[in-house]
Amino acid sequence: MDGTRIGRRELERFCARVFESLGVPAEDALIAAGVLVAADARGIPSHGTARLGRYTAGLRSGLMKAAERETIVRESPVSLLVDARGALGAPVSSRAMSRVIEKAAASGIAFACVRDSNHYGIAGHYAMMALERDMIGLSMTNTAALGVPTFARQVMFGTNPLAFAAPADREKPFVLDMSTTVVTRGKIEVYERAGKPLPPGWAVDRDGRSASDARTLLRDMLSREGGGIVPLGGDTEEFGGHKGYGLAVMVDILTGALAGSAFGEAVRDTDASSARVSHCFAAMRIDLFRDAAEFRRDMDAMLQALRTAPKASGAERVYYAGLKEAEAEERAEREGIALSGKAIETLRLIGKDCGTEFP
Amino acid sequence: MDGTRIGRRELERFCARVFESLGVPAEDALIAAGVLVAADARGIPSHGTARLGRYTAGLRSGLMKAAERETIVRESPVSLLVDARGALGAPVSSRAMSRVIEKAAASGIAFACVRDSNHYGIAGHYAMMALERDMIGLSMTNTAALGVPTFARQVMFGTNPLAFAAPADREKPFVLDMSTTVVTRGKIEVYERAGKPLPPGWAVDRDGRSASDARTLLRDMLSREGGGIVPLGGDTEEFGGHKGYGLAVMVDILTGALAGSAFGEAVRDTDASSARVSHCFAAMRIDLFRDAAEFRRDMDAMLQALRTAPKASGAERVYYAGLKEAEAEERAEREGIALSGKAIETLRLIGKDCGTEFP
Repeated sequence: MDGTRIGRRELERFCARVFESLGVPAEDALIAAGVLVAADARGIPSHGTARLGRYTAGLRSGLMKAAERETIVRESPVSLLVDARGALGAPVSSRAMSRVIEKAAASGIAFACVRDSNHYGIAGHYAMMALERDMIGLSMTNTAALGVPTFARQVMFGTNPLAFAAPADREKPFVLDMSTTVVTRGKIEVYERAGKPLPPGWAVDRDGRSASDARTLLRDMLSREGGGIVPLGGDTEEFGGHKGYGLAVMVDILTGALAGSAFGEAVRDTDASSARVSHCFAAMRIDLFRDAAEFRRDMDAMLQALRTAPKASGAERVYYAGLKEAEAEERAEREGIALSGKAIETLRLIGKDCGTEFP
Repeated sequence: MDGTRIGRRELERFCARVFESLGVPAEDALIAAGVLVAADARGIPSHGTARLGRYTAGLRSGLMKAAERETIVRESPVSLLVDARGALGAPVSSRAMSRVIEKAAASGIAFACVRDSNHYGIAGHYAMMALERDMIGLSMTNTAALGVPTFARQVMFGTNPLAFAAPADREKPFVLDMSTTVVTRGKIEVYERAGKPLPPGWAVDRDGRSASDARTLLRDMLSREGGGIVPLGGDTEEFGGHKGYGLAVMVDILTGALAGSAFGEAVRDTDASSARVSHCFAAMRIDLFRDAAEFRRDMDAMLQALRTAPKASGAERVYYAGLKEAEAEERAEREGIALSGKAIETLRLIGKDCGTEFP
């Protein structure tokens, strides 16, 4: 699907102009554009500019507050609670993580919750902000409820991603960025569009049995008739579905519950509102425990051993978390970001609506 | 498997006397016994007194240091690095988590690494120590390498459990305590004893193909000929195996690498030594973000909603992490701990070897 390639900065400037045309302050527009395009660059198009239309719709309807500025509700040398007041998720999250990193630089560790926010893009982006400071970074968010507890048949939590980043020296950094459900809604939609049956073990239907029809699943799940995506590990305890379920709830506790905001099934997109979500961020200095340069050299040894591990019969490569994405990003910097003809047409139309020409 | 039931305190005293007879100081013996018996009480017998024989063998051979006392290598108001010097894992871990909780009480958050340690029992035990202080608790450990990266065929990391605990009010606390592989070695051994084929998706053989014969797998995996247990999510990316793989490596980074100790395939049981492992512990005060009593009431609402979620067709109950274990522990307190005739016979023999009568 190598369509046209467009320069990363060009694409960022275009998205920023779109945001600005809808009343987003220039600084916030640049940040939000940067995070969206970073997803495309890192080969995660589901979280990239393909979402621009949802953002412009949210901003137009006023559900996402274009010009709202977050407030700090509670603060200590190691912690921060931010009220995003319905603003775009990326700018408030970027500033929250920056403050967390400054606090960690001074205190060693810091943790922040952000409440009443919106979609913040790829979780890994914020965790990675800690890397150049020789810190470990963490980021999580809850999402509209799409996940079903083990042995149940109703959505009770989101796809609740968690991201964790640790620096290496010559190796690409370790960046885990994963939803805690088996798959996300985007994957189900791909199967719907292709008219393909879902692999057994991705989702359950309104009776809690393995779901195969993507269209029926999406209809029933989004209307809360029943059914939904199952946690990492599947729909039984035999393969550890209860573990993915536990991870998803852990994320909900560290975001929605700790922030004093919505959690569980209360996090939902409705006609009246996009899902207001909560995030959390953490950073920790490596030199609390050992010399950071020594740690990075050990990380090189670990990551090199992983990617050069003996391959399974028929396998092409062994990766570690973040390696594929870093390679995609290098290519995007070099050659531009690949967008399909359809994606470009959509962006062009959004631009036209906003009085901004697509490059 | 309701065999004989024995009082929790009686079983603890017996195990403590066994440890003391092998040179473990009284305080450490009580802690190690308490953590082992807690596993039995919480319905996790794989980590309970069934391991007593491995402990006594380790202590006798000197691989586990009976009378060694840990040293503090580095310390700050929010952090702690402990060298266990090969001592039993539970006493050093219990003291490390206690110090983490005191540091968090003063500073808000604290994080500890413990290196050169031994088996520490159930990860959840340490995370739960934070609960009564209205803190969130975290605990992880690396283990001897038994897990295979996605697309590989050689063990490169342990079953690396992580535990997370958050308090509730009237509900049982949320306690996630999970290995990051699909299953642990103990489950494979159960299938070996029963002569049953392994479910596809638990392990891969020396060629990296789905393994079905438990005996061959154990032989090849433990001798590092190839093959091993796959990460949570299975042996493909289709069901998220790369996510479980990422979680396992995250645990290895936060324990072995951060502590400056062994990680990855270097963590192994040999003839000369049991695997020296590393742990990490963290605690965070809830009132950094909101009133703890309000948080606990929200936790009640979340957990009650989860356990009363509409059941899948044919399912008996919906749980949340820690609920089954808390119910088992209540029953164990009331009625004693159920041990099979075979388990009792083994304990009796261990007692005899140590000059200690089994009650």
